[in-house]
Formats: sequence, structure tokens, C-alpha cells
Amino acid sequence: MSTETLPDTTRIVLASRPHGEPTAENFRTETVATAAPGEGELLVRTQYLSLDPYMRGRMSDAESYAAPTPVDGVMPAGTVGEVVVSRADGFAPGDVVLAYGGWQSHAVVPAAHVRKVDPATAPVSTALGVLGMPGFTAYAGLAAIGRPQPGETVVTAAAAGPVGSAVGQIARQRGARAVGIAGGPRKLEMLRELGFDAVVDHRSDTFAEDLAAAVPDGVDVYFENVGGRVTREVWRHLNLYARVPVCGLVSGYNATSLPEGPDRVPALMSSVLTKSLTLRGFIQTEFVPTHHDDFLREMGGWVADGSVRYHEDVVEGLEQAPAAFVGMLRGENHGKLVVRVAD
Amino acid sequence: MSTETLPDTTRIVLASRPHGEPTAENFRTETVATAAPGEGELLVRTQYLSLDPYMRGRMSDAESYAAPTPVDGVMPAGTVGEVVVSRADGFAPGDVVLAYGGWQSHAVVPAAHVRKVDPATAPVSTALGVLGMPGFTAYAGLAAIGRPQPGETVVTAAAAGPVGSAVGQIARQRGARAVGIAGGPRKLEMLRELGFDAVVDHRSDTFAEDLAAAVPDGVDVYFENVGGRVTREVWRHLNLYARVPVCGLVSGYNATSLPEGPDRVPALMSSVLTKSLTLRGFIQTEFVPTHHDDFLREMGGWVADGSVRYHEDVVEGLEQAPAAFVGMLRGENHGKLVVRVAD
Repeated sequence: MSTETLPDTTRIVLASRPHGEPTAENFRTETVATAAPGEGELLVRTQYLSLDPYMRGRMSDAESYAAPTPVDGVMPAGTVGEVVVSRADGFAPGDVVLAYGGWQSHAVVPAAHVRKVDPATAPVSTALGVLGMPGFTAYAGLAAIGRPQPGETVVTAAAAGPVGSAVGQIARQRGARAVGIAGGPRKLEMLRELGFDAVVDHRSDTFAEDLAAAVPDGVDVYFENVGGRVTREVWRHLNLYARVPVCGLVSGYNATSLPEGPDRVPALMSSVLTKSLTLRGFIQTEFVPTHHDDFLREMGGWVADGSVRYHEDVVEGLEQAPAAFVGMLRGENHGKLVVRVAD
Repeated sequence: MSTETLPDTTRIVLASRPHGEPTAENFRTETVATAAPGEGELLVRTQYLSLDPYMRGRMSDAESYAAPTPVDGVMPAGTVGEVVVSRADGFAPGDVVLAYGGWQSHAVVPAAHVRKVDPATAPVSTALGVLGMPGFTAYAGLAAIGRPQPGETVVTAAAAGPVGSAVGQIARQRGARAVGIAGGPRKLEMLRELGFDAVVDHRSDTFAEDLAAAVPDGVDVYFENVGGRVTREVWRHLNLYARVPVCGLVSGYNATSLPEGPDRVPALMSSVLTKSLTLRGFIQTEFVPTHHDDFLREMGGWVADGSVRYHEDVVEGLEQAPAAFVGMLRGENHGKLVVRVAD
């Protein structure tokens, strides 16, 4: 297929850097001619794009583990789509691939950076969720850092999100007790359905007491993805030698300044010392070489036999991505948030 | 020798719990009849006792990794002394042993809790320092957590102390670059003599700039034993995947409340996340089963051949222990602080 016959590309770019919570003004929709792939590249038509908290970091130019998205650059995202034009060996039109296509209807991507997705084994959108980056984040954080042992207690916040729900279910596969923290009765009910041993609503006036009741033996692994007040309460219950994989701090991503004092760093460091705690920040890419094959094998098996389940929150249409993204940062999604861009 | 013929035991007990910096009123000297050892016990005449920052923690009843010393209890300390009466197989009067005898002239200790010290291999006081708990703290923290690689940069504060000076010298044995932070020209000169690659005075008005100049390639291992302002400055220079063994926080041991805000915990956690840092609190006892044999072999060899050196700050007489201890918390000692109780 020649690119002359293709429809234009619709894309959403970063119009300006947000100060605090992103708003509609930080995004701009553009229509441009669809580019032709070069040697070794593919033109992919986006079917689903993934919305994830890390994108908030890319919108800022603060120092981080990844370069910021430039102003006027396409917003980044993992995508699942269909190959339209292939200029790379081993790929043909009609292949479904996981790519880093961004918030746009078509993307030119290096074939070396994509992975084929088999539509026969699971819905292709799972390559963005339970069998993709969020699921692997949960798997690798537990395998490499959290290392839950049978009978231990694993706590995760944002437990109704794609990482947290996988953390709890994987912990149970390892014989540990899974405690999930989320906001509101609908999310708690979802966690119960997924088999969490105890669930706690952080919006409740009795959150602290509820949490204490949910972890009678203390906390051995706290999978950190929120920060803030929830983390402070969990911290009180950490056991000697507890492990804290730090994979996200979504409660603070929109913060524009440090919170008021006192400075709690000395108290945090003191508990690190007196409880022999391990805190370890990580990005899932670090563990791809060592853990991704195991992940696809184990997690793929658990999803196939139903022992690990997942929820998707599917938003229809690329134009809905900015509003859905802002809502996710507020905790409004239920399950893995994806945008269906095309069939 | 019958205990009836022994001189009385002089001992220093915790008279009251300190609020902030300990003072003379928190200690009381007592003279009591020397006890007789029971079956499996030894009566040991103290020659040296060790003064260490952890003792400040035992004076408080805040939650910690070890039970607090009770009010009216003998202040705890590692000791080197001579067996006077043995009621345990394998020990005879005249043997020199490392024990946990406390701040007193004589102690009855379980033989199972002591280790013989060979006066032929090194001065017996080294069993309290470079070849004892402080040296092992440095060795195990680096071996199990810091894992310095050749060419990496290892920073330690309180570098003129017994742990810090061992950290720097062991790091150099591993092929890493050792940077020491200490207060005042006399300590800096000591560090240069020990072979540190760079030294920084935290009392200088240009401390931040001096530190930056001393770590042009950033910091791969920060051996944390002070906390506070020094740590905040080092933190800025941590590299991706840096490791922070947390073995002490002496700058905060006398604090009675958290410092003023802002609350820097979100900033600390953000750098843990974006730099994939490892923070790991530890007490050396955790690593005795896995690392102590290696320590005695390697560190013993390095001390014997002069590639690791040490400084001792010897205070004469048990009655000087409280003042020397308070001075150590202020950083007034130069090298490992020990009290010579008797010859």
C-alpha cells in the first residue's frame, strides 16, 4: 500500500508544560500527512494506546529517568496496532505489533523496537496491560525486589490500577497475603473479586484503623506507587526487613512544591535504619533482560487459566485521551486505562 | 581465684533517660561487690571498653532494633578483658576475650557470647575497632549492600570515625575511589594519611562546592552514618543505581523533634524512583553468619600487612567514659574511641 492513499495522521502533541494538574490547554490536536517508513521501519495504524501515570513525568522538564517530551512533540504512549507498510524483514501488513507509537492514529516505528502480538492467545489490548508494561512492572518489582515469601503480607496502594491489581494477584500466586488500598466502594469490590485477602478504602475517615486491622502481622512488602498520606500510614506497619519496591509516586506527580513541614526525612531514615528496611526505586526496563521471558511464560499462563484476571477501562476515540489521562491522575479510572483509537 | 579476694566492681549505670544531648546527670557511678560467675559463665576484668554512637539509642526508650537499657542498668559496651574466673570449658584465667561487658570494671558474661582474642596478632584493643564491630560494620555494609565496583566513587561521612575510615580503605581495596567527609583540618589530614582519594570538610563555608569538586563522576555508594545536612548535599550527586547502606544517623540521635519543613520526603522518594536508588538499613549482626569469616580473613590480612590502618583515641579511666561519649556524639574524637579501664 502506498502512503499516498493513506488517510492523514491525527496526533496529540504537548502544547505547553503543565504547572500542577494538566489541563486541556497543555494538549493540541494536529492533522498531518502520514509519513512513509524508511528502511527497517514500519508504518503502524494504532488500534489501542495506553495511558499511564509515567506520562505525567514526561510532560515536565524536571530531571528524571527519561528525557522529557519536547513541547510540540507527540505525547508518548505504548500502542497496539496493525502494520500497514513494512520495510523490515519479518513483518508484513496485517501483523499486530506492540510499539511505542504515541498519542496518534498512525506511527512510523523502527521494527527493532516492536514486538509481535498474537491475537489468538489473548485480546490484543492486554499487551498494554496485564501482559504488558504494567503487568511486567508488578511482576519484576516483586521478583527482583519485593520477593514475597509464603505467609508474608504484601500491601499495594492504587490497587485497582493495572500495576496494583497485578501485584496483589501475583503475591497470592507466591503464597503471600494480598492487601489492597484503593478509593471508593466500586474499586474495593473489584479488588475483592480479584481475590485480594483484605481491602482498605483510603477515602474513609477510619482509613488508619482499617489499615491496621487489615495487616495484623505487619507488612513485609509495600509496593510503592502512590506516596503521600497513604504511604505514611502503611509505613507504620512495616516489619523488620520489609522491602519497598518504589515504582511510582502518583499522588505527588502534580505537586508544584514540597508539602509543609515538619521535615519527615529524619523519621523515614530512622525507620529504614531501625527496621533494616530496603527501599529500591526501579523502572521495569531494568529487568527486561533478566525477567521478561519468565514473565511472559508465568503471567501468560496465569492469565490463560484465569488465575490472574484484569479489568480494562476503555475510552473510545483519540480525542478523549487528554481528559481520560487527567482523570486517571485523579484516580477516576477502574482498571487499565486504554484508548481505542481504531478497530 | 575466689571472688572473695576480688576488688569491688565499679560500674556506670543509666541514671535517667536523656532529653536531647546526654549530660552527666544521665549517668551514675556505683561500686558493688563483684559477682561470681555461674555454670558456663566467665568473670572478666575489663581492659578496654568501646564507645560507639549506637549507645545513644539504647539510652532512649523509642522503638529500635534493640531493647533500651533499663534505667539503673549498666551502660552497654563491647569490651576486651582478661578472664579472671572461668566456669566454662575452653576458657582459663588469663585468656583475653571480646565480650559485651558494659561500662564496668568487671563483668560476668556467658562464655557462649565471647570470642577469644589473640594478643599476638594485633593489639587487643583492635578487637573493638578495625577488627571488631566497627570494622565489620564497614566491611559487611560494603560487601552486602554497597558492592563498590572498580572505578566507582564511594563517599562516607564521619570518615575519621572507626566505621568511616574502614569504609574508605576497604573501598580502595576494591578498586573504588574513596571520598571522605569529616569536620576540621586535623581529621582531614588523618584521612589523607589513610589514603582517601579526596577529603571534604563539612564545617567549611564552601562545603557544597568542595563536595561537588570531589565527586566529578557522581556518587555510586554513599555509606550513610550521619544524616542531616551532609546527607542532603551528598544526595544531589547520587548516580543512577547508587546504593546507600544506612548504618547510622548520628547527627539526629540527640534530636527531640523533627526539623522544620518543608517536608522533604517527597523529594527523597522522587530521587529514589528516578535514579533507581537502593537504600538499605542494616545492623552488622545480620551479616555475621554470612560475612564474618571473610571479614576476619580479609581485614585481618589487610591490617597485618598495613594496607588498612586505624587510629585509636584512648581515654584513660572508666570515670571518663560519660564525657568522652558525649564528646563523640559531637564529633570530638579522632579515630576509634576506647576507654582504657585497666592494663
